[in-house]
Amino acid sequence: MAFDTLSTPHGRRTRCIGGAATHASVAASYFAPSLGLVGVVGEDFPAAYRAILKRRKVALDGLSTAKGKTFHWKGRYDGDMAVAQTLKTDLGVFATFDPAVPAPWRKAPFLFLANIEPGIQEKVLKQMTALRFSLLDTMNLWISIRRAALLKVVKQVDAVVLNDQEIRQLTGESSLIKAAKACLKLGPSHVFLKRGEHGATLIGAKEYFHLPAFPTDKVVDPTGAGDSFAGGLMGWLAREGRTSPAALRAAMAAGVVLSSFQVEGFSLERTVRLKTPEIAGRLKALRSMTNF
Amino acid sequence: MAFDTLSTPHGRRTRCIGGAATHASVAASYFAPSLGLVGVVGEDFPAAYRAILKRRKVALDGLSTAKGKTFHWKGRYDGDMAVAQTLKTDLGVFATFDPAVPAPWRKAPFLFLANIEPGIQEKVLKQMTALRFSLLDTMNLWISIRRAALLKVVKQVDAVVLNDQEIRQLTGESSLIKAAKACLKLGPSHVFLKRGEHGATLIGAKEYFHLPAFPTDKVVDPTGAGDSFAGGLMGWLAREGRTSPAALRAAMAAGVVLSSFQVEGFSLERTVRLKTPEIAGRLKALRSMTNF
Repeated sequence: MAFDTLSTPHGRRTRCIGGAATHASVAASYFAPSLGLVGVVGEDFPAAYRAILKRRKVALDGLSTAKGKTFHWKGRYDGDMAVAQTLKTDLGVFATFDPAVPAPWRKAPFLFLANIEPGIQEKVLKQMTALRFSLLDTMNLWISIRRAALLKVVKQVDAVVLNDQEIRQLTGESSLIKAAKACLKLGPSHVFLKRGEHGATLIGAKEYFHLPAFPTDKVVDPTGAGDSFAGGLMGWLAREGRTSPAALRAAMAAGVVLSSFQVEGFSLERTVRLKTPEIAGRLKALRSMTNF
Repeated sequence: MAFDTLSTPHGRRTRCIGGAATHASVAASYFAPSLGLVGVVGEDFPAAYRAILKRRKVALDGLSTAKGKTFHWKGRYDGDMAVAQTLKTDLGVFATFDPAVPAPWRKAPFLFLANIEPGIQEKVLKQMTALRFSLLDTMNLWISIRRAALLKVVKQVDAVVLNDQEIRQLTGESSLIKAAKACLKLGPSHVFLKRGEHGATLIGAKEYFHLPAFPTDKVVDPTGAGDSFAGGLMGWLAREGRTSPAALRAAMAAGVVLSSFQVEGFSLERTVRLKTPEIAGRLKALRSMTNF
């Protein structure tokens, strides 16, 4: 959970609602039958932001409020907006976060470990008692400075979601195919590779599935695109209640579609107001874009 | 038509058979009912190399032999082999090439203008009298130093085949979607975007179709991958005798498959010895890789 202060060629926003868990939850809410968020905010986190999540039926029993300030990210995107430039990061209450999963949620079958320090991710994972599918996200920072802790938690999850740079950094392989295969040896049965404008690829021991990015020329703010991708796909799996190859593929398509909406507005501006037919329309279009 | 002297992490070859027309023709030969090559070689071009093309049923009536040396490219690929490093280029007989299309070929319905100086491409195009579909390839050099001549011939073709860098350089747009749309305004009705390990995308006014690269971790020599892609797709169109949306999509798939074989060996080593079931197998696999 975060405040984001950011500028892109399309405008700027100050202290808008952000954070990986936020974006993933809202994306997942379009599919998941029920959904809870575990995280921490400071005393400065406004009720209006909680209300946004509640309206999307995201349960907040796992959201603790700690003394101090909410995590705050300040950044900007220039040019083609492929890479965020971080101007400042205020860790705030993240520095001492000790996550507690509410008792009734510990039996949840589907878990998304959004990007955060890997020791914290593992603490959440250890509290779960009936997992059927767990997905882990991370970032270059943790691959670099928390490598051992990260590898330990990666070994215990069913799947990871990484972008090009992250998987190369994690495995030391420059070829994406080789990097993905190396990643499977670390423990997960599947890798979801986020390739930005080049789409997404699902790779498993006997699986290779690729989708293009949903083509759009109105990228307003890329923040949260990867989180919406992961959230959309986990929400879809939760709705299906299955992790068959077909379910994983359709789930990835749902992730691609949710992330395509996410980038069309700042913060949650576009993603909180989606209509079911809009989502279905892009899923159908995505299918036709790869059909021959 | 060229001699290629090159090294990759997998080995080296000296004066092997190369050139855009060579690679495109051999790839096209797996589908096209009949096929001719217009080009020029020097007196040093060996009969054994002509024989390779003849065995693939590539008619050489349009291949002239000029006084002087065959074009010779010397280069190397390092690391992940995404980019060729040119060590030396001997233009040889290309410097004064004035292409003549054999009279019976001028009524051919399908034309691929492989990468060469755009004025030469236009001279070939002008000789054609019954075209149904023409495709043009080019490179960074011509976009830079022959821009006006290139734009003139681009305006007259049905489609162009470009990689990421080329389309950005040609249009000045960094977003690939915007670049493709800008490219359509230059004249062609379709753009085939070659994205290397990220696959290929077909873009038209009402068309958006994407395929992943065929996943392989044994890239031996990337030389000719783009030419095999273009040749495979043009050969497919020639066989179909149609340029419907469905035909263009299937043709692009054929291009992706042919280029996937091309990179698995040096020069034509892999591509000259393909079996029909191998090609059909990869087409089927490619279809399943995008199905959800």
